[in-house]
Amino acid sequence: MFTRIDHVGIAVEDLDASLALYDRDYEMTLVHREVVEEQGVEAVLLDVGENHVELIAPLGPETTVAKFLERRGSGLHHVAYQVTDIAAQLARLKAAGVRLIDEEPRVGIRNSSVAFLHPKSSGGVLTEIVQPSHEGH
Amino acid sequence: MFTRIDHVGIAVEDLDASLALYDRDYEMTLVHREVVEEQGVEAVLLDVGENHVELIAPLGPETTVAKFLERRGSGLHHVAYQVTDIAAQLARLKAAGVRLIDEEPRVGIRNSSVAFLHPKSSGGVLTEIVQPSHEGH
Repeated sequence: MFTRIDHVGIAVEDLDASLALYDRDYEMTLVHREVVEEQGVEAVLLDVGENHVELIAPLGPETTVAKFLERRGSGLHHVAYQVTDIAAQLARLKAAGVRLIDEEPRVGIRNSSVAFLHPKSSGGVLTEIVQPSHEGH
Repeated sequence: MFTRIDHVGIAVEDLDASLALYDRDYEMTLVHREVVEEQGVEAVLLDVGENHVELIAPLGPETTVAKFLERRGSGLHHVAYQVTDIAAQLARLKAAGVRLIDEEPRVGIRNSSVAFLHPKSSGGVLTEIVQPSHEGH
């Protein structure tokens, strides 16, 4: 059971240029900025009510996000749904036949637990599930 | 000011096949199904907490969604943010220099008022703002 849309992930070339749009023009509040080495990105989170926009920019040309940008340009990259028990959800989804990129949760932005589902079994949509850390929300 | 993510819009070839994933495997509740002639789609809404997933399938080969599917395949199509006063938001965004597809709100799914912002000034993201109707939520 997914409790809400945690965030939409948007791939951008330049974080600061994109912040001008999201922060200034869309009036979303910037709440977090972090280098996530494991995913090869620098990311920011902006609040939209209880949901977030996550802007991600590649750390280098060999990262998956750099390749996404090369292929498609900046735009919607993934959607993340919030869960309360990620291990139970992964087991349930696997049993339902959903193909997983991450069989085990790993650490994501703001110390959350995250796992990606494969776009091949998610209708072409890179889909993430997220269990926020106790400190986060 | 955007109050939440209203929905993510996902372009699909076949609504019923996609419902098997979202309804059955992701356990999202189907709450609405509608032909939106003006946008050339048949659409369904599924609840994810207070947010929604909107699956859209083209009504014919000349529609913009059919062309999107031809170019990119099924996947994330747009993101929609909820607002309480769409006319005021459109005026504010226009004054901020954001390029609008719809200068005036038009009727969207479930009798909402919607307007699209141009991806050229939204970092490649087709962005919609939505004011729900009083009957909807």
